[in-house]
Amino acid sequence: VDKRSIAVDLGGTHVRTAVSDESLHLAGRTDAPTLLELGPEGIIDQIVRQARQSVSESGVSWSQVQTLVVGAPGPLDATSGVMLNPPNLPGWENVPLRLSLEAELEIPVKVANDANAAALGEFYFGAGRGNRNLVYITVSTGIGGGVVVEGRLVEGASGTAGEIGHTTIDRYGPVCKCGNKGCLEVIASGTAIARRFREGLAAGERSIVTEWVDGDLATSADVARGAQQGDRFALALFTDAAEAVGFGVVNCIHLFNPDVIAIGGGVTKAGRLLFEPIQRVVEQYALAVPRNVVRIVQAELEEDVGLIGAAALSWTHSRVAW
Amino acid sequence: VDKRSIAVDLGGTHVRTAVSDESLHLAGRTDAPTLLELGPEGIIDQIVRQARQSVSESGVSWSQVQTLVVGAPGPLDATSGVMLNPPNLPGWENVPLRLSLEAELEIPVKVANDANAAALGEFYFGAGRGNRNLVYITVSTGIGGGVVVEGRLVEGASGTAGEIGHTTIDRYGPVCKCGNKGCLEVIASGTAIARRFREGLAAGERSIVTEWVDGDLATSADVARGAQQGDRFALALFTDAAEAVGFGVVNCIHLFNPDVIAIGGGVTKAGRLLFEPIQRVVEQYALAVPRNVVRIVQAELEEDVGLIGAAALSWTHSRVAW
Repeated sequence: VDKRSIAVDLGGTHVRTAVSDESLHLAGRTDAPTLLELGPEGIIDQIVRQARQSVSESGVSWSQVQTLVVGAPGPLDATSGVMLNPPNLPGWENVPLRLSLEAELEIPVKVANDANAAALGEFYFGAGRGNRNLVYITVSTGIGGGVVVEGRLVEGASGTAGEIGHTTIDRYGPVCKCGNKGCLEVIASGTAIARRFREGLAAGERSIVTEWVDGDLATSADVARGAQQGDRFALALFTDAAEAVGFGVVNCIHLFNPDVIAIGGGVTKAGRLLFEPIQRVVEQYALAVPRNVVRIVQAELEEDVGLIGAAALSWTHSRVAW
Repeated sequence: VDKRSIAVDLGGTHVRTAVSDESLHLAGRTDAPTLLELGPEGIIDQIVRQARQSVSESGVSWSQVQTLVVGAPGPLDATSGVMLNPPNLPGWENVPLRLSLEAELEIPVKVANDANAAALGEFYFGAGRGNRNLVYITVSTGIGGGVVVEGRLVEGASGTAGEIGHTTIDRYGPVCKCGNKGCLEVIASGTAIARRFREGLAAGERSIVTEWVDGDLATSADVARGAQQGDRFALALFTDAAEAVGFGVVNCIHLFNPDVIAIGGGVTKAGRLLFEPIQRVVEQYALAVPRNVVRIVQAELEEDVGLIGAAALSWTHSRVAW
């Protein structure tokens, strides 16, 4: 049988679907803005519609379609396939995405953390090609991650492994939305950089960034631009955030001793402004043996990473429930 | 063929050896104080002698002996089998333990981090029995660790994975001997607790511990005893150290989503004094889904853990060089 699987990338802005075969060739791609205003039911309908479109456009028959894998924003319980309360999908709370899709499409469905899926995408087709041990970190609105050890995605007992964004590097630091203290996401995500910028201005800092945008509306990209133009406050803030990511990277080097750490997500558009402080922290603080083997690089796959990762998960033996 | 392997536990105080078969049955055990005063060459001779004794006492022939695995104190490079500069073996620097033992015994030798080996021991015969994902943390003179994912030890690209003791939870904290900042070992190891106790006394703290031991000589066990007797400073210090371990445990929960976290090592003799603050930090700061599946328990194997772990490593397929 010529088996196929449906890959879905469910994001806060886009829903993408495709049909994949075992060599991860994608066919019948669809890509549409997430219909956030329709709420969970409407978006589940949207996924079903786009999935059906992928199948019909790719010219395969439904009898060939074995499974559907959705990469979806966390937090979620991969065992039950329940989305808990993803900040990127407002109004979703305890949505049984897996059951809803299985009821609708009558094939086994797996719901995976989007950053975990992306890690697998980078491993097979991006910065991890030819390696066996990869840590993927996405620095974006939030900070997520995924880990591949000896060619296999680390899923954990309930499919929530790889939450690098919610590891603490400053036990006395601010409290994150996740409830944890001083984790990477509350210090160094795009949202955190923007928040810290506002807080700084409120505390009396001055910045050239306010010449082109109201400080309350400045994004991490604005802060990066200010830093690149030599603005003292913006540079100090962005560097501090990047160093925080650096400590997270050191922790990953010490725990996983990976061949490669691939960093993706929108905040990496800042380039050297982000990567140089990370490298500096790693040079200074990581143990020599694992430091000497690891490459720290920009992730290579862009918007396709989630879809490719979901496709890869389709064909990966996994103990976490379908 | 009825294959055998030699398991060696090389520690700062004891050298233990045994012969193991594939079911991890140990025979011909030896146990002797480490001859620290003889330096690396003398201790390597000691290992060879005890290994030979294990083989002869267990009644197997040398032709059955396939391999020797040493669990040894880090830092080490498992790929080359070179011991770098282990604090627990003074005078050792860049010792090619693997080559020396292979030259002497003419069988393939693998040098593994002792805490990694112990993790595997706990996984097979201790607190991890019946589970698939385990994190092992030893809180002792130093803090070490090892991780088992889906039944396999995480070794990493050069065999140095699992260095939980050198993960940062306080980026503004003190500098560790390892060069890193605010890692668990410099905050919460037995050595750190004793050092912080001395520092506190020097800064004017008072403690009943000084009624039975000179403050400069007090160990973490003395601090624990003081805390158990209600001494304010000793209790605050020990609790702070335990909470630091708690943050390390939270990070492991978020990264590995394990079924069980087993904590061993001498400092666990403090019992609830150590475990209650850890549990409190986990309750307060860990994400609900992975927190609800993980058991945090005292490691079960005592002095045998290293030997059993080395034996288990003998029969584990591993990509890190022999």
